[in-house]
Amino acid sequence: MKKKQMKLGVFLMGTGHHIASWRHPHVQADGCEDFAFFHKIAKIAEKGKLDMLFLSDGLSFNELSHPAELVRFEPITLLAALSVVTSHIGLAATATTTYNEPFHIARKFSSLDHLSKGRAAWNVVTSYYEDEAKNFSQDAHLDHHLRYERAKEFVEVVKGLWDSWEKDALVRDKQSGVYFDPKKLHPLNHKGKYFSVKGPLNSSRSPQGRPVLIQAGSSEDGVNFAAQIADVIFTAQQTLEEAQHFYRKVKKKAAEFGRNPDEVIIMPGVSPYIGNTEQEAREKYEQLQELIVPEIGLAFLSDYLGGIDLSRYSLDDPLPDEIPETNGNKSRRKLIIDLARRENLTIGELYKRIAGSRGHRIIFGTPEQIADQLEEWIIHEGADGFNLMFPYYPDGLSEFVDQVIPILQERGLFRKEYEGTTLREHLGLPEPESRYSPAPSQ
Amino acid sequence: MKKKQMKLGVFLMGTGHHIASWRHPHVQADGCEDFAFFHKIAKIAEKGKLDMLFLSDGLSFNELSHPAELVRFEPITLLAALSVVTSHIGLAATATTTYNEPFHIARKFSSLDHLSKGRAAWNVVTSYYEDEAKNFSQDAHLDHHLRYERAKEFVEVVKGLWDSWEKDALVRDKQSGVYFDPKKLHPLNHKGKYFSVKGPLNSSRSPQGRPVLIQAGSSEDGVNFAAQIADVIFTAQQTLEEAQHFYRKVKKKAAEFGRNPDEVIIMPGVSPYIGNTEQEAREKYEQLQELIVPEIGLAFLSDYLGGIDLSRYSLDDPLPDEIPETNGNKSRRKLIIDLARRENLTIGELYKRIAGSRGHRIIFGTPEQIADQLEEWIIHEGADGFNLMFPYYPDGLSEFVDQVIPILQERGLFRKEYEGTTLREHLGLPEPESRYSPAPSQ
Repeated sequence: MKKKQMKLGVFLMGTGHHIASWRHPHVQADGCEDFAFFHKIAKIAEKGKLDMLFLSDGLSFNELSHPAELVRFEPITLLAALSVVTSHIGLAATATTTYNEPFHIARKFSSLDHLSKGRAAWNVVTSYYEDEAKNFSQDAHLDHHLRYERAKEFVEVVKGLWDSWEKDALVRDKQSGVYFDPKKLHPLNHKGKYFSVKGPLNSSRSPQGRPVLIQAGSSEDGVNFAAQIADVIFTAQQTLEEAQHFYRKVKKKAAEFGRNPDEVIIMPGVSPYIGNTEQEAREKYEQLQELIVPEIGLAFLSDYLGGIDLSRYSLDDPLPDEIPETNGNKSRRKLIIDLARRENLTIGELYKRIAGSRGHRIIFGTPEQIADQLEEWIIHEGADGFNLMFPYYPDGLSEFVDQVIPILQERGLFRKEYEGTTLREHLGLPEPESRYSPAPSQ
Repeated sequence: MKKKQMKLGVFLMGTGHHIASWRHPHVQADGCEDFAFFHKIAKIAEKGKLDMLFLSDGLSFNELSHPAELVRFEPITLLAALSVVTSHIGLAATATTTYNEPFHIARKFSSLDHLSKGRAAWNVVTSYYEDEAKNFSQDAHLDHHLRYERAKEFVEVVKGLWDSWEKDALVRDKQSGVYFDPKKLHPLNHKGKYFSVKGPLNSSRSPQGRPVLIQAGSSEDGVNFAAQIADVIFTAQQTLEEAQHFYRKVKKKAAEFGRNPDEVIIMPGVSPYIGNTEQEAREKYEQLQELIVPEIGLAFLSDYLGGIDLSRYSLDDPLPDEIPETNGNKSRRKLIIDLARRENLTIGELYKRIAGSRGHRIIFGTPEQIADQLEEWIIHEGADGFNLMFPYYPDGLSEFVDQVIPILQERGLFRKEYEGTTLREHLGLPEPESRYSPAPSQ
């Protein structure tokens, strides 16, 4: 029997996920805004037959952020450009439902899906940084729960717009002069709490039917939303046990929503350090840890905890007992607090852990050991795949593609060639039905 | 003395500007959503050393529209993709200020300018179709005058966001660990009638300093706005006399706003039909005219006049005396009514004129005659250049590049090689000062 196939995404983050990656001697410090830098990375990822490139996003500037988030390409424009120099790999961009309009989002992702011939994915987020509100004529975010309520309606509208045109609606018959068949065109006429959208979309049904939907919410609202709408779920899980718990919970919820749990792909983030020995892998990590400017590491931790002031504590103190709640990203905050408590980390140790992978799992080892650690989570149902967060680009990725991928292929856990050309095909997801398709005859 | 150089844009419109272009035997009927089709066109335009590719846009579906406007790529994603396969030609996309947010627009165009290394332009529009409102949770457009008021504030905010980072603000000094110089970073803190935007932008100052601004409003509000903010002005002018009047008016207004009139480039639209003889050129036009489906031609005219019902008139009737005003595009409506009155056109003749070029000037002739007609308007100050609206793609464009461009080059009216790499350089526009730049020392 064919083994379960692992799905692998590449989480792009400028020069790398490690907060000090840009200072690494092998790294191009200004890669974040250089197309050639991303072009190189995309080619390596496609050589490795990986499933997709993934870009996170934010709509504000925060000087405490990871340097790769300070200035960067807008994700959809960057992926549109990368669609031209790649032919198979999926292209996933983040866009928030809190500061966008569904018509724009439906159209841009449909456009990207047409450009890439079926490789687009939308990572649906509800916004983290409170400052985003202030760039969009608001004083503050909608409340966390309402952001998800808006997101749910937003996604419904977007899916409706993607269904505007049936697959064969554009006739373009030169002889008769008929350009489209009006019977196969469907306005939306949506009227809801947050949006009124007439439709139809001015973009035909895209090659994937609908672009792939990704979600990464891990709060209660987030998990409910993801289980309901997401084809792919990103998550941060530190231990196999936690990952299994999350995996079971989400698959169960998806089934409760009437979905096939196999069509909800769970991909925790993981940051691999690869060496000829485990020792060498750990030294690579230490080399980066030493490049962290302490003030920046501490500020980064404060920011992750919702802006809490840590300056009156020593780096050797534990995290204070009381961390006030904010209206930001609840699951990320909890993950970091749990990590500190579980491993008894001092503030100094904690910021160093966050600086490496922002709360995601870090693994070390030889290519064999890396493959073992990935395989373990797949076999024991902690994950269907991983969103790979390389500490620095492109070297971290090329080492993985050259050294780890062949082992995974050898073990029958990962494709040797792309079997299809669309992202849905790579992920084993069926083509979605249009809400207007006639029921298939029995 | 070097002659005044003509600026030439290519107005992309799917299969072509003629409403029946998709039925032409040489044309790929489904070109509108095929990247390879645009790729081919972009390469030809760049071979001709043309200044820029231009994409119009709309945010609604109207079945009476030009077929190339029914379904199409979203302009910024398409141009981002084209940036990869071109190296010099400018990339101009339309985006409305009525249904967008300044932060998104500033960022997307900055991203496109980074991707293309300085070739982005934004055509600022205030929306034409009333139906756009209904895709953005509104019942109707803002009033025409208020749309321009919003547009003015919108552009100010976008320029302010483009000035967020001084040119050398991103230090990225590996040695010291300093990523940026906070003294060279400027939040915006804009609070106005329509927008509150804190800033700064999460994109560094782009290669052109600011992307090029284009405007095409020709109403009183439109001309005022264009003269104040636009680097390039698109316009529809039928006769040299009208064009000269418009040219003088805009340059004068620009001077009144304290601008250098030479830095406001006026480019009327023109649709050229090229043949070995003038007769052959006119036959190419007639061939397309005969492909117009009458109902579609008539519907297209109704639509251009704001949705007026023409079905109770015969095709041989003149245009009725009373055409009700709408809240749509005032200058386009006026242009068409004026054309009908001036040339005493019947409704049938009028829709055929509109179907060819939507009210823009059509010229016929041998390559020499085409060159003459373009040169005449340049010499006599009716235009600084033209936005070329080829009746069908790519053939209309390749004929122009192969046959007309060499004549213009021979006459010293058009560049033989690109002299720079940015769109501003092609257009002879200076690099804009940031509002935060220190005054140059005397």
